[in-house]
Amino acid sequence: MRTVTCAAPVNIAVIKYWGKRDERLILPVNDSISFTLSLDEMYSKTTVSISPTFTEDKFWLNGKEESLENPRIQNCLKEIRRRASKRKLEGSDEDVLNWHVHICSANNFPTAAGLASSAAGYACLVYALGQVYGVEGDLSSIARQGSGSACRSVHGGLVRWYKGEMEDGTDSFARPIAPANHFPNLRVIICVANDGRKKTGSTEGMRRTVQTSRLMQYRIRESVGLRIDSMMQAIKEKNWSAFCDLTIADSNEMHAVCQDSFPPCIYMSDTSHAVASLVHQYNEIQISKGNLNNKVCYTFDAGPNACLFVPGAVANEMLSLLLRTFPPSSPPNADNFIRGMKPQTLSLSKELESIADENAQSGRLKYLIHTKVGEGPRVLTEDGAHLLDPVSGLPTESGGMA
Amino acid sequence: MRTVTCAAPVNIAVIKYWGKRDERLILPVNDSISFTLSLDEMYSKTTVSISPTFTEDKFWLNGKEESLENPRIQNCLKEIRRRASKRKLEGSDEDVLNWHVHICSANNFPTAAGLASSAAGYACLVYALGQVYGVEGDLSSIARQGSGSACRSVHGGLVRWYKGEMEDGTDSFARPIAPANHFPNLRVIICVANDGRKKTGSTEGMRRTVQTSRLMQYRIRESVGLRIDSMMQAIKEKNWSAFCDLTIADSNEMHAVCQDSFPPCIYMSDTSHAVASLVHQYNEIQISKGNLNNKVCYTFDAGPNACLFVPGAVANEMLSLLLRTFPPSSPPNADNFIRGMKPQTLSLSKELESIADENAQSGRLKYLIHTKVGEGPRVLTEDGAHLLDPVSGLPTESGGMA
Repeated sequence: MRTVTCAAPVNIAVIKYWGKRDERLILPVNDSISFTLSLDEMYSKTTVSISPTFTEDKFWLNGKEESLENPRIQNCLKEIRRRASKRKLEGSDEDVLNWHVHICSANNFPTAAGLASSAAGYACLVYALGQVYGVEGDLSSIARQGSGSACRSVHGGLVRWYKGEMEDGTDSFARPIAPANHFPNLRVIICVANDGRKKTGSTEGMRRTVQTSRLMQYRIRESVGLRIDSMMQAIKEKNWSAFCDLTIADSNEMHAVCQDSFPPCIYMSDTSHAVASLVHQYNEIQISKGNLNNKVCYTFDAGPNACLFVPGAVANEMLSLLLRTFPPSSPPNADNFIRGMKPQTLSLSKELESIADENAQSGRLKYLIHTKVGEGPRVLTEDGAHLLDPVSGLPTESGGMA
Repeated sequence: MRTVTCAAPVNIAVIKYWGKRDERLILPVNDSISFTLSLDEMYSKTTVSISPTFTEDKFWLNGKEESLENPRIQNCLKEIRRRASKRKLEGSDEDVLNWHVHICSANNFPTAAGLASSAAGYACLVYALGQVYGVEGDLSSIARQGSGSACRSVHGGLVRWYKGEMEDGTDSFARPIAPANHFPNLRVIICVANDGRKKTGSTEGMRRTVQTSRLMQYRIRESVGLRIDSMMQAIKEKNWSAFCDLTIADSNEMHAVCQDSFPPCIYMSDTSHAVASLVHQYNEIQISKGNLNNKVCYTFDAGPNACLFVPGAVANEMLSLLLRTFPPSSPPNADNFIRGMKPQTLSLSKELESIADENAQSGRLKYLIHTKVGEGPRVLTEDGAHLLDPVSGLPTESGGMA
């Protein structure tokens, strides 16, 4: 039996992936750029075991056995085995390709909250499979076939997913474009909104947008390409202020084309807009003081939760501002309102206090996740890391860690 | 002394006016099309008196004396007097041009709720001034200089405002394109949302959109022109189903370009989106039954309140659906929840009941206004119509009727 356990990170796009040019191969209509988040706070963990004694392929997700029929998982598995077989033709132990596989996967963060869990999950699956089967080279184009944005979680730091031009998708892969410390000491604050509204799933939302929104055609044809170029320039020049403006603009453009769809796809809520507005007010103050490097940017995926990228110098201030503007409404939330990295001091200038009080709406955020940008997936070797028992190949007690 | 009292209607754009090419002359970046609403439920009323005994121009709005310094009112007054003087050169009583004017204006509906009160107000002002000074011909281009969309309230039924090409704005005026009964027996339901959020004013919002949204440039250059052509075709062919889809699409495109602005301008709220979603669900049922003439459309101005255009055959059903989905939360609202025309029967199919119950959120709408489409401004001659005393020229007790 071979057993490998890996962790893979969440990534958050700053130039959005929205719309497929090929639904089966998961090929996007435009390039996208993302930040990979630190493994310290949020990660998917996957254990893969292969053994000649297993009688069938099996899969457990968050402690529950699931069907392996899912074509997206099958595509990843098939592609990894195909690559392994190519490699093994020159090698020795071809047998492992005929062994069955057990996969156990779990997230340490809520999967229901729209927090890019499928990106981390598929990146982790493919990375772990790659380790077990000894597959080298680019894994991003395999992860892409599990969940588009998963291809970006295969790398750390700033990552670009090239849409590619080929019909077979072979040139649609992700590459790191800058390391995690490119903008030094950057923090991430995810504002989990207290919003129970059902959303249109990303796959359906993308399809509807591509098929019905005129503005989307313009985004694809002209706008997002220009913004990718500007963003690459801003990254190259380490121009944080431009980076912020471009990130904000692209998030809003994505939600604009969603609103322009028929029927419209609405992901942002009143709370989302309140957080965005707070960030703009905060930035206006920083701009008026000439502190362009203290600007904060927001971006929203297909859900109501804001993801803020915050320079370390103002991270505590931003947490304080959010805490005062959106105070938790009831004790169970209040106890654990700021999750992840603990802020050191919480204090606000009179000016920011008054902005918080003007915008104050208690109970609108469930909690905050305070983390940072980080590296790509890694193999976990510490004791007790495995989610599958190395002897039985069945889930351990921690198999459903979330 | 000459005294005239007029009433003018609200109009609701189905192809939106959003963005000026000239801020001073109020010239729009695109043509727009609107429905004029009935004077029965919502109107502005204005009395204009001129007299050789008045010592200065005076203005009262909703019972309160206001400054006449407002350049928009001044522009209207100046332009009416200029046209009157042209005409009077051939006539007799030139004196009246030197008389001072008293203006008293009031709305019978809330001015704070974003219900197109300035459109009705300026249309009424210009219409009443035109009557007093005996000005004939097109009044829409004068009303336009008070408030852009006021130019459309000068006519009844379906009205098109041509953006014009000339720099001086002389070819930017409104013309009726179909009578009020063009789509027979049409009803209007305005869903006044229970939303206290401050909005960005229209003038500021338009400016920001034109200056910062890329998608807006596409709307101006390509999209809205195509939609105007399709809408004219749908009107010509009396194709209600196409009319609905185009109205919905244009409202969403306008709010999309607002969302795409920097910072974004957000006018629709969670409640707005809930109403829009309900309409789409309702239409899907009608489409599945082949009842395309029963479709309902929504449109949102720069505020959270939905305006629905509803075929008479399903107006009671739609009122019932709204009432069950968004029941008033407290007795004071419940007593007067449906304002305007009283519905005859309120009942729902099981299918619609279940849709209402799925979406139900009590207290999200303050009240509904149930009205219909209608005619343009008219002179009021009935006893007690005047808001200014015909002897003193000062406001009567009903001067602040709202």
